[in-house]
Amino acid sequence: MSFKLNILGCSSAIPTINRNPTAQLLNVNERFFLIDCGESTQIQLRKYQLNFQRINHIFISHLHGDHYFGLIGLISSMHLLGRKKELHIYAHEELEEIVNLQLKASKTELNYPLFFHPLPENESLIILEDENIRVSNIILDHSIKCCGFLFEEKKSPRKILADAVEKYNIPNTKINGLKNGADWINDNGEVVKNNLLTKPNNSPYKYAYCSDTRFNNKIIKQIKEVDLLYHEATFMHDLIDRAEQTGHSTTLQAAQIAKKANVKKLLIGHFSQRYKDLNDLLIQTKKGFSNVTLSYAGLVIDFQDI
Amino acid sequence: MSFKLNILGCSSAIPTINRNPTAQLLNVNERFFLIDCGESTQIQLRKYQLNFQRINHIFISHLHGDHYFGLIGLISSMHLLGRKKELHIYAHEELEEIVNLQLKASKTELNYPLFFHPLPENESLIILEDENIRVSNIILDHSIKCCGFLFEEKKSPRKILADAVEKYNIPNTKINGLKNGADWINDNGEVVKNNLLTKPNNSPYKYAYCSDTRFNNKIIKQIKEVDLLYHEATFMHDLIDRAEQTGHSTTLQAAQIAKKANVKKLLIGHFSQRYKDLNDLLIQTKKGFSNVTLSYAGLVIDFQDI
Repeated sequence: MSFKLNILGCSSAIPTINRNPTAQLLNVNERFFLIDCGESTQIQLRKYQLNFQRINHIFISHLHGDHYFGLIGLISSMHLLGRKKELHIYAHEELEEIVNLQLKASKTELNYPLFFHPLPENESLIILEDENIRVSNIILDHSIKCCGFLFEEKKSPRKILADAVEKYNIPNTKINGLKNGADWINDNGEVVKNNLLTKPNNSPYKYAYCSDTRFNNKIIKQIKEVDLLYHEATFMHDLIDRAEQTGHSTTLQAAQIAKKANVKKLLIGHFSQRYKDLNDLLIQTKKGFSNVTLSYAGLVIDFQDI
Repeated sequence: MSFKLNILGCSSAIPTINRNPTAQLLNVNERFFLIDCGESTQIQLRKYQLNFQRINHIFISHLHGDHYFGLIGLISSMHLLGRKKELHIYAHEELEEIVNLQLKASKTELNYPLFFHPLPENESLIILEDENIRVSNIILDHSIKCCGFLFEEKKSPRKILADAVEKYNIPNTKINGLKNGADWINDNGEVVKNNLLTKPNNSPYKYAYCSDTRFNNKIIKQIKEVDLLYHEATFMHDLIDRAEQTGHSTTLQAAQIAKKANVKKLLIGHFSQRYKDLNDLLIQTKKGFSNVTLSYAGLVIDFQDI
């Protein structure tokens, strides 16, 4: 299955000309999950030719504007462009009233069903699950209630070995059973073991998104060994007191979380507008965790390359 | 006095990569008035190096998102960047609750005083007046309640003729009186007429902003002979039925309003996203009114050049 992350913005609270606020698009086998939706996200989606009508699920980490001020514009444009299919929003419960009040002020009755799913505030639970993916919230430690999200691909079915299936003359009706691990028993009662008929698929991918948060040991267990950890690194490490005070993390704190959780790769973002050149943040983070990369709008991470 | 208009966006409901939604900045003698505030207006202000902390008054025509979805982000950034001075917002009354709900959700207590001034819904009144300018609302005919705005510079004081003042040895304490039209009476009781001591200043500038609206004869009287009329022209004239149905105007309707009101110059905008090349709209509008120009982000109109 394809599993790709598109970065649409990487700034913290105040957008700049060159850095849009936070938004990411996760593509799991051509199903699209939007994670946070700062101002101008709809423009960023257009810019990178990502069709926003294909998004069916939107996850909002918290109600600071740099994570959701673009949502109402996106909802409106989806409506104006004729959307009919459902849209699901996972966010803290106050968001529903904010959106509905704005729709009411413009006398807009959406063409499509919009569902709000309130996030658990004190515990991590599965908030979305289907045949391909499981999404859980991660309790973060910010200045207001805030959740990260863990996206876990479900175990993929095994891949069929076409030659073997032909050799044993196995009917099509049995293929799904084989993919799920069944052996084959022929007319003579002979058993052909599944591992002669199939091979394992890729191991399921995992993506953990953690923004905004103080350094928080409690999340380690939940994000253990994910393929990719996005962790905010709003500040260089000399501003550790400012990070603590404002509910954010430094470069070295993000690195420490990545190391403790033994993740494959770390992606940092949510950079303070004070940093004109982000390379300093990258270099400092590398001191604590070597496999790290900077978020920037337009970056695409394909999980098969991690 | 300087009197300049900066265009920040010109699209209608759906923003595109190349066209931001509506926002304009009017500079009257270095006092800055923001007119509408579509999504990304704060970025546009930065892009054109217009310091948004100098804006003290914001006018929102109506509560369709393409005219105000950027406001909450601008209010937040003003706060985060340490603003202390008052901000005044002139809008339909529902906006106050929308803004306050979002500030509450983020637990933000603004550093600066924010005042909401509800717009009159059924009549045109003076909504702001000071020593230099008078602003009135214009009742427009849209799908929801909607106001335009008329900005009228007040009559400027007359300009002193320095040579004459020296010739008659007039003391400094009398200069303001002369600027306001007083004659000069010397110690011998001789009267020197004001027009020998001063000359007229520029005639006061007038700017009328009309978006969004159907063709509406009723506004003619109020916008008569303004220097610049901004009138929406969402559609080419073949879509006159669609314009009527959605509460908008066509190119030729905008031209007709400009002609009937005998304005000096017409500025059209609020273009539907269906038009990739805006020259067709310009050419068609010119058939009805010759002194017309297209809105585009980055355009600056200096009223002394009209």
